[in-house]
Amino acid sequence: MRTSRLEAFSDGVLAIIITIMVLEVKIPHGEEFSDLGDSFPSLLTYLLSFIYIGIYWNNHHHQFQLVKRVDGVVLWANLHLLFWLSLVPFTTAWMDESSLASAPTVVYGVNLLAAAIAYYVLQQVVLRADDAGHLELALGNDLKGKISPVLYTLGILAAFVSPAVGIAFFVAVALLWIVPDRRLESYVAEHAAD
Amino acid sequence: MRTSRLEAFSDGVLAIIITIMVLEVKIPHGEEFSDLGDSFPSLLTYLLSFIYIGIYWNNHHHQFQLVKRVDGVVLWANLHLLFWLSLVPFTTAWMDESSLASAPTVVYGVNLLAAAIAYYVLQQVVLRADDAGHLELALGNDLKGKISPVLYTLGILAAFVSPAVGIAFFVAVALLWIVPDRRLESYVAEHAAD
Amino acid sequence: MRTSRLEAFSDGVLAIIITIMVLEVKIPHGEEFSDLGDSFPSLLTYLLSFIYIGIYWNNHHHQFQLVKRVDGVVLWANLHLLFWLSLVPFTTAWMDESSLASAPTVVYGVNLLAAAIAYYVLQQVVLRADDAGHLELALGNDLKGKISPVLYTLGILAAFVSPAVGIAFFVAVALLWIVPDRRLESYVAEHAAD
Amino acid sequence: MRTSRLEAFSDGVLAIIITIMVLEVKIPHGEEFSDLGDSFPSLLTYLLSFIYIGIYWNNHHHQFQLVKRVDGVVLWANLHLLFWLSLVPFTTAWMDESSLASAPTVVYGVNLLAAAIAYYVLQQVVLRADDAGHLELALGNDLKGKISPVLYTLGILAAFVSPAVGIAFFVAVALLWIVPDRRLESYVAEHAAD
Repeated sequence: MRTSRLEAFSDGVLAIIITIMVLEVKIPHGEEFSDLGDSFPSLLTYLLSFIYIGIYWNNHHHQFQLVKRVDGVVLWANLHLLFWLSLVPFTTAWMDESSLASAPTVVYGVNLLAAAIAYYVLQQVVLRADDAGHLELALGNDLKGKISPVLYTLGILAAFVSPAVGIAFFVAVALLWIVPDRRLESYVAEHAAD
Repeated sequence: MRTSRLEAFSDGVLAIIITIMVLEVKIPHGEEFSDLGDSFPSLLTYLLSFIYIGIYWNNHHHQFQLVKRVDGVVLWANLHLLFWLSLVPFTTAWMDESSLASAPTVVYGVNLLAAAIAYYVLQQVVLRADDAGHLELALGNDLKGKISPVLYTLGILAAFVSPAVGIAFFVAVALLWIVPDRRLESYVAEHAAD
Repeated sequence: MRTSRLEAFSDGVLAIIITIMVLEVKIPHGEEFSDLGDSFPSLLTYLLSFIYIGIYWNNHHHQFQLVKRVDGVVLWANLHLLFWLSLVPFTTAWMDESSLASAPTVVYGVNLLAAAIAYYVLQQVVLRADDAGHLELALGNDLKGKISPVLYTLGILAAFVSPAVGIAFFVAVALLWIVPDRRLESYVAEHAAD
Repeated sequence: MRTSRLEAFSDGVLAIIITIMVLEVKIPHGEEFSDLGDSFPSLLTYLLSFIYIGIYWNNHHHQFQLVKRVDGVVLWANLHLLFWLSLVPFTTAWMDESSLASAPTVVYGVNLLAAAIAYYVLQQVVLRADDAGHLELALGNDLKGKISPVLYTLGILAAFVSPAVGIAFFVAVALLWIVPDRRLESYVAEHAAD
């Protein structure tokens, strides 16, 4: 299978995930500005999840730009990642409805951690199929990829005690990734597969 | 019509089906870990349906990689398949809401069987249009394609008595297909239409 | 703007319309086979609207295959068509919820008629931009395009008295279009823009 | 990253936004023509938001046709724009449910203004990356881009007193943009990046 098909399908799924989450944002019942306050937590968690899906989309494509063809194993590793990401609207909605209670925030963190692990598995599977070794060189020692699971785990543990602290960890990981990976980006610019 | 258009549209529909199903997963009412238990059957059937749509997407593209152009008959055979797949969120939701009762599980199985038949019809129609005979050779004797309808039928019959046994059959078919078809895959790698 | 962008966006919108309509199909409350009866009218109108969107997707692409570039006027004529088609889930849902009452069936017919007129306008705008005259030749005297609005109008008038007769007219138009337009198809096969 | 990937993802998100808004249109409870009146404000605001998303899609692609490759900064500026646009279904729904009350109309205007600012930021970021200067020349003095924020601000202020007048301003901006930008369009026709 050509990489472009896998990218197009993943694009579609990520575009839908990022957009349908807005359907979960609670519409205020009243019609005053103050009523918008009820939607605020919803809007903030929507923003956080929006950024996360955006990060995955970004990294996903940088990675696949260095690879020309994919096999069935890559395909299922990719669907595995999309599965965890497709649960983000669900875990976000539960966290919202509980007004950031402890258990739902832990579950949200577990969802993020599972997606990170799925992404790592996908990367390994792609590396194996990438004979030219472009991606391996491009990734270098992948510091962010190593720090993120640690921060997720700390966030999950913290959320047992204080959901707010847990979410602070999740926001930290997001910030870490928004800064584009110059190294991978410049490597891609030189060695893009097409 | 070029195959790429049909693939892009099918990609879109499958990406949406696979993603909107998560909107049907029931969000727990409470905010304890134990409340997540209410969503468990929902999550498991979501996973099963997610895998099914993933399998169809996978097979769909392997098949169309060997074909360059499609006519109106292929197009409608393809829409026929998409119609049955688009009902999967509906039959999954009914099965969930009934907590895996007998009738909804039977209907879910009938939906899977109808999609399998629609896929078979599509394959025959594509084979007819595929002058080069690439696909015919690639499919070989298509053992999985022949076993699946039998397993679906057994699952449907079993679900009349025990929904759990019925679902076990449907899981078995999914597992059968997750293992990628090396033969078709390697054939495609050599003879892809572009 | 290249035609491919307009096609990709239209593909996306049509894929979403065709798929989200299933969210409107009522999930049965009970868990017996007989409870599925409640969903039957929903499922049939879903099927009808699914076929209509499929027909528009089919014709849309056949038409644009003969055109290389589009301007702002074509773009807005296309969005105008997509607007009417995007209302189909709304008018279908109202017709369903009213159990095929007279007024909602009339409104459904008006929606179909408006989409047909929007398609005609789009066709004229594209013809104007199509210097090579390929599309004009391909369309020939476009008998179906001329009969359809008449049948829609008869269906709308009939629905005032009997919704069932009205719907019979709408089904008739759908059947008319499912049969692929061999003439246009063969012309496209010879003169496709790429 | 190639521009085509960014365009495909943005296409997907915009196609979904434009289509899921119809899910928010209230289906009439009764089954008489007069009951459709309840849906009228919903339908009109849907139309307005549909046109806005259409305008952004149109401008978005005209802009990116002149640019070949994009970096991480462009990517995040683009996601920033998509974030504000993805809130349009939410702010539209609140405005509807409040039957065009003052505060929700103001918030709708703020959403439109934020999207316009995000678009301006995106344009500046793209201009910076566009060495060839094609886009800068094509945009010229960008009169519409300068007038729109002023009209949005006036509309927001007016909506504090009269929501109807506020909406009149928002309709005016939409009309301003529906007229295609002949200058940019003809420039694009000559210098499109592919």
